[in-house]
Amino acid sequence: MLEELKQKVYEANMELPRRGLITYTWGNVSGIDREKGLFVIKPSGVDYDVLKPSDMVVMDLEGNKVEGEMNPSSDTATHVELYNGFKEIGGIVHTHSPHATAWAQAGRALPCYGTTHADYFYGEIPCARNLTAEEIEEGYEKNTGKVIIETFQGKNPVYIPAVLCKNHGPFTWGRDAAEAVHNAVVLEEIARMNFMTELINPQAGPAPQCMQDKHFMRKHGPNAYYGQGK
Amino acid sequence: MLEELKQKVYEANMELPRRGLITYTWGNVSGIDREKGLFVIKPSGVDYDVLKPSDMVVMDLEGNKVEGEMNPSSDTATHVELYNGFKEIGGIVHTHSPHATAWAQAGRALPCYGTTHADYFYGEIPCARNLTAEEIEEGYEKNTGKVIIETFQGKNPVYIPAVLCKNHGPFTWGRDAAEAVHNAVVLEEIARMNFMTELINPQAGPAPQCMQDKHFMRKHGPNAYYGQGK
Amino acid sequence: MLEELKQKVYEANMELPRRGLITYTWGNVSGIDREKGLFVIKPSGVDYDVLKPSDMVVMDLEGNKVEGEMNPSSDTATHVELYNGFKEIGGIVHTHSPHATAWAQAGRALPCYGTTHADYFYGEIPCARNLTAEEIEEGYEKNTGKVIIETFQGKNPVYIPAVLCKNHGPFTWGRDAAEAVHNAVVLEEIARMNFMTELINPQAGPAPQCMQDKHFMRKHGPNAYYGQGK
Amino acid sequence: MLEELKQKVYEANMELPRRGLITYTWGNVSGIDREKGLFVIKPSGVDYDVLKPSDMVVMDLEGNKVEGEMNPSSDTATHVELYNGFKEIGGIVHTHSPHATAWAQAGRALPCYGTTHADYFYGEIPCARNLTAEEIEEGYEKNTGKVIIETFQGKNPVYIPAVLCKNHGPFTWGRDAAEAVHNAVVLEEIARMNFMTELINPQAGPAPQCMQDKHFMRKHGPNAYYGQGK
Repeated sequence: MLEELKQKVYEANMELPRRGLITYTWGNVSGIDREKGLFVIKPSGVDYDVLKPSDMVVMDLEGNKVEGEMNPSSDTATHVELYNGFKEIGGIVHTHSPHATAWAQAGRALPCYGTTHADYFYGEIPCARNLTAEEIEEGYEKNTGKVIIETFQGKNPVYIPAVLCKNHGPFTWGRDAAEAVHNAVVLEEIARMNFMTELINPQAGPAPQCMQDKHFMRKHGPNAYYGQGK
Repeated sequence: MLEELKQKVYEANMELPRRGLITYTWGNVSGIDREKGLFVIKPSGVDYDVLKPSDMVVMDLEGNKVEGEMNPSSDTATHVELYNGFKEIGGIVHTHSPHATAWAQAGRALPCYGTTHADYFYGEIPCARNLTAEEIEEGYEKNTGKVIIETFQGKNPVYIPAVLCKNHGPFTWGRDAAEAVHNAVVLEEIARMNFMTELINPQAGPAPQCMQDKHFMRKHGPNAYYGQGK
Repeated sequence: MLEELKQKVYEANMELPRRGLITYTWGNVSGIDREKGLFVIKPSGVDYDVLKPSDMVVMDLEGNKVEGEMNPSSDTATHVELYNGFKEIGGIVHTHSPHATAWAQAGRALPCYGTTHADYFYGEIPCARNLTAEEIEEGYEKNTGKVIIETFQGKNPVYIPAVLCKNHGPFTWGRDAAEAVHNAVVLEEIARMNFMTELINPQAGPAPQCMQDKHFMRKHGPNAYYGQGK
Repeated sequence: MLEELKQKVYEANMELPRRGLITYTWGNVSGIDREKGLFVIKPSGVDYDVLKPSDMVVMDLEGNKVEGEMNPSSDTATHVELYNGFKEIGGIVHTHSPHATAWAQAGRALPCYGTTHADYFYGEIPCARNLTAEEIEEGYEKNTGKVIIETFQGKNPVYIPAVLCKNHGPFTWGRDAAEAVHNAVVLEEIARMNFMTELINPQAGPAPQCMQDKHFMRKHGPNAYYGQGK
């Protein structure tokens, strides 16, 4: 079932090591079929070298395995929460990409220092709080998802398709698995640039709001004119 | 038309990912035929994997598309301004290369800390100011070019073939598209070295003027003796 | 003798340059056959290009060469001490991987800033003290092992399979040579992330203990549920 | 003439881009035949892609070209001075490798923070002073060599086969061209590690002298026991 989606999610997973976002098996990508209410996710702890499209695990939105011989990613319950909480998204990525993870470990939101950021993310990328001991005990992965959703109260997850989980690492999302991976690549790159920006000028401030508006909207707004108008 | 120039501009564009200056489609190179008053530029948002010489778009110096099926780079109006403002240049590059962009985001000119810099750029590489909200509204890309030209009042763009646009990223130029790319590579490398230089010694100062003169002139002056005398 | 172990130790050694942990011959991996009380180690100063499984040297736990035409690694006496002091371990790695070595040179334990660390190492990775002039004189490599063991008094080397030797570099270990290399790769990656973490936020603190417990135990505790339950 | 030496110097030059020490043509390697009093050096500004052994230029120790169609490296006069001043050396390398150059631009000697350094360099690697305007005017490249030699008054260039030239970059040397390149690789690696060391711990101090003695001497002293005793 969902063979085409499995293939796409497989390919999105394979893009992670190709883009240098992954050491060993530290990441997972999923993609959802909204009509069927089912999503496809990488199995847990399987090497990218041997991963096959048919290894992808099919899950429903209550967190039940619907198809697949392997255990799904240990972070599956986080994906479930995000798909339920953010109705517009079609794909989710988690990595431990080094620069984004460093910001998450530092417990800081990623400021919008420039147009590279503003081309993809509208405003700073928030850093979600730590889970409490009770939340960890009760359901670590599920509550990770709930805390991300809490972090986005008053924010638009379509306009800011990424979050840093404190002392952990980033999650990104998008219209589908491929776009979620694309956003993970961009997040890592801007985390790297912003790290250097602050060392070069500790007084650096965010890009002017009008510039952020311009760049985000020329790629994403109703009058977007970047690219070939697809 | 301009098949030879298209081929050269295509090759200069392809050098960007090969040199590690580009993530996804974040860059563009153009080259001009001064006699005809036409320039050739990469189309907007096209993957480097599928880019072909025939995809290059031909533009005139008033910003009209003369030939090409695709939309030109979204930064085309900046290239138009630079070709009109800097009559001596034959090629232009824009990238978001990470170290140069970090300096741009930090809003700082790149000091000349050594001979690697002085071999190519005579004095510090300036950082252009942010555009005002009005300038952005009126014509963002065009006014980006105007602000760069304003930045070079009293400076020689042939001696300093690069600029950092605040909160954005670098533009470089050269006698042709290939040299502009060459300068983009050098800029990224010195931005990286200079970043480290200041962390190693916050009191580091620029290279002595006599040393800057010597290095720039042994490669670029009338009595240049570097290379094989081409 | 020990042909299978030699092959595995050879392969573990070859993984070091593949993972970018090694410049020239700056590293060594060994693996032990606990039943026979013999271990196999890389010869000293041999290029990875020409290294063969049959070059591996067989040593006993008193530091005598049992088989092999070449000199064993100059750090062999350290391996002997660690195998004798840490009875549960089956493989040992020494490298000068750059980020881990930078922490060792800084003389600081590696704090647990996040889950990437906590997935593999339970608590901070200690930095062993310098040897005294007498200890160096008496037996540098052997006493390096003794000082590592001293550093682990009150700590569980199975739960923290790594150490930084001050002004020198890291040693890691594991159930076998392959796992010891895996831990060396992870150590380098977290040393890199943690370096950036402190620069992004000098006040960054360790991950909450409940989070460290959760991550370490979901991979290593009796109720581990990461991976495919092998 | 000197075909074998040309081949070796050619190979040593080609090792520079392979090891990532070089951008474009920013480096040069030479090797000397002490009996004949002639050395072989890379031509100036020739791309590594097209460089051939027969392009190597033969020079005498007074700086005269003895054979070769091309101009020798623009730094040839520095090599002449070093061969005349340091009689024990057989090969010289100049690069702008980024980390070593950052230290040179910072104007600081490279401290010996650990055994990676001490395995190759006995004590800190000095930073040579800037040339005066007069020295630059009179003979920039020649006086660069003279200032390096001045920097080594009271130091042994065989024990410290490297120098940083302020606001410029490193020179390394060795028994032959290949060893000089080897030392350039090591210098870049320790410059990188030491950069991070100081950021991790601004109070980091050099490795204890007894440790530096031990490591340098176990590889280089009369009782060296590292490697296979070649």
